[in-house]
Amino acid sequence: MVTLNTAPVEHFSKILAFGAARPEVVVTNEDVCQWIDSSDEWIRTRTGISTRHRADEDTSVLDLAVGASLQAIERAGIAAEEVDGVIVATISHPYATPSMAAQVADAVGATPAPAYDISAACAGYCYGVAQADALVRSGAARNVLVVGVEKLSDFIDNTERSISFLLGDGAGAVVVGRSETPGIAPTVWGSDGSRWDTVSMSHSMLELRNRDWVNNPVQEGEKVWPTLRQDGPTVFRWAGWEMAKVAQQALDAAGIAAEDLGAFIPHQANMRIIDQLIKTLKLPESVKVGRDIADAGNTSAASVPLAAHRLLEENPELSGKPALQIGFGAGLVYAAQVVILP
Amino acid sequence: MVTLNTAPVEHFSKILAFGAARPEVVVTNEDVCQWIDSSDEWIRTRTGISTRHRADEDTSVLDLAVGASLQAIERAGIAAEEVDGVIVATISHPYATPSMAAQVADAVGATPAPAYDISAACAGYCYGVAQADALVRSGAARNVLVVGVEKLSDFIDNTERSISFLLGDGAGAVVVGRSETPGIAPTVWGSDGSRWDTVSMSHSMLELRNRDWVNNPVQEGEKVWPTLRQDGPTVFRWAGWEMAKVAQQALDAAGIAAEDLGAFIPHQANMRIIDQLIKTLKLPESVKVGRDIADAGNTSAASVPLAAHRLLEENPELSGKPALQIGFGAGLVYAAQVVILP
Repeated sequence: MVTLNTAPVEHFSKILAFGAARPEVVVTNEDVCQWIDSSDEWIRTRTGISTRHRADEDTSVLDLAVGASLQAIERAGIAAEEVDGVIVATISHPYATPSMAAQVADAVGATPAPAYDISAACAGYCYGVAQADALVRSGAARNVLVVGVEKLSDFIDNTERSISFLLGDGAGAVVVGRSETPGIAPTVWGSDGSRWDTVSMSHSMLELRNRDWVNNPVQEGEKVWPTLRQDGPTVFRWAGWEMAKVAQQALDAAGIAAEDLGAFIPHQANMRIIDQLIKTLKLPESVKVGRDIADAGNTSAASVPLAAHRLLEENPELSGKPALQIGFGAGLVYAAQVVILP
Repeated sequence: MVTLNTAPVEHFSKILAFGAARPEVVVTNEDVCQWIDSSDEWIRTRTGISTRHRADEDTSVLDLAVGASLQAIERAGIAAEEVDGVIVATISHPYATPSMAAQVADAVGATPAPAYDISAACAGYCYGVAQADALVRSGAARNVLVVGVEKLSDFIDNTERSISFLLGDGAGAVVVGRSETPGIAPTVWGSDGSRWDTVSMSHSMLELRNRDWVNNPVQEGEKVWPTLRQDGPTVFRWAGWEMAKVAQQALDAAGIAAEDLGAFIPHQANMRIIDQLIKTLKLPESVKVGRDIADAGNTSAASVPLAAHRLLEENPELSGKPALQIGFGAGLVYAAQVVILP
């Protein structure tokens, strides 16, 4: 019987730094009202969103990922060659293969780091942090770059009313590295695939493959390209109630109480969901809350790191304080963990 | 200063069981020669492939994943509810979101397990095993289902000569669980995104989004749907030489020699690459080699677990013996690890 070596499992992990990339095109509620019958007041009251940022034609989802990654690596104070894991959480990479992560790794100078994309929708960044934590603590990696990035403007239909007007583009990134003290508490995460159609695409990509384009030509106004849809009321109930339980479980798993938190950084799906979570969790006023959505909209996998990045820029005294971060979305999937802010 | 709990890091991990799903349509070299100018002899000599299995229209990539997963869970001797992590490695899921993994988790009875898809091409399964190992050893999960699945027939053009004729459909799955002794040695993995175009898609999905279908209608014979391409000679050199070094590093990381191996289970890209790897690694004849490619073709993320599944069915005495498994492909990405066969 052969005995294998295994890597030591004696490290703690922590987030070393955040990076962000916010594209320059600002889409206002007035812009949105050209495409759907709504009003600035209705959108602000129902969603808390005033603007969302979107990338122009010349800015790819890869460009956004690389921008956020370079800042995270620089702020982490490590050399790019010290990155030995790259995880890109996204739903908007327009190629079946290769992964975006391999290209990000190369663009930032981290080749030959292992690199892979993950699909966990708006929970993707928190899923990535859970994996990075496991890779670092188990000795499989030393510095893992986790990127949440979306160019959702490539996957929306501006005339669609259930979700498109909420969505923006952007990228947030962290480097997860070793720590002498615990910096990432256990992740509470899960899925409910029985509700996969609550947030989903309008149709399968295979409809484009299988179509007889010549004998069944596209008609004026026909929606060929699959775009995002959601059952908003169901998402609202699920997020506001079920996710409060998950957030509480993450606090319990970390062994801390709501009043110990420096910050609460939920997925930026809707300001009313954020308010509902605060109320159900009974967060005291002392806890700073990420409310990036007002300016940035819902950027799916990018929303939690973008909100954290802004919160730290505006409140540098949060450095070293515990923050509860939670992502949730299409799948349905969710992940929450308490982290020490860098 | 708040102290966080972290999960204990005191476990070993191992593969508990393999599962497989092989679709029923058998595509022969004669069939292939209807689409490209070649011959059965040329294909056998150059690739070692006699047939590949492909799924019919009514069998989805999800169906294949669920089939392999159910068998792996049953053979692992655990209840589906005990699965607390689902990782699906694939490049052929035809939706931007939700993940296939959330649907697999639900279909097999593992909800609310955390579930995510990963994109690491033909290395996807070995990447997934590396993650499952880290999740189990770090205490983040107890039983992780890792699925490599492809319905590549949805992403090929049968008249294309560089890669399409090599490819088949299928699914392989494992459950990675706790172990009292080391069952998965450290993974040697990496990427080289500077060579992302060595194996890639013919064009971006965004060309379908941005097209003016009405004023620029599809012409007879035009290839609208993006399909796979490769630079075969470059892949052959990279795989035959560079991957032999990676395989040797994985042996070294496990602390064992080639002659200690019970089996060698490389990605089933081409029989000549397999032969080159055996030669460079100086594997003795006593080491059984996975050569599933002759019957199954190259099934990308599914190829290593499918080959392992067959090898164990045909050689049950391999149970308990160490096997070197290695995946490599588009990215370029690679991952190798020594595992104890269940």
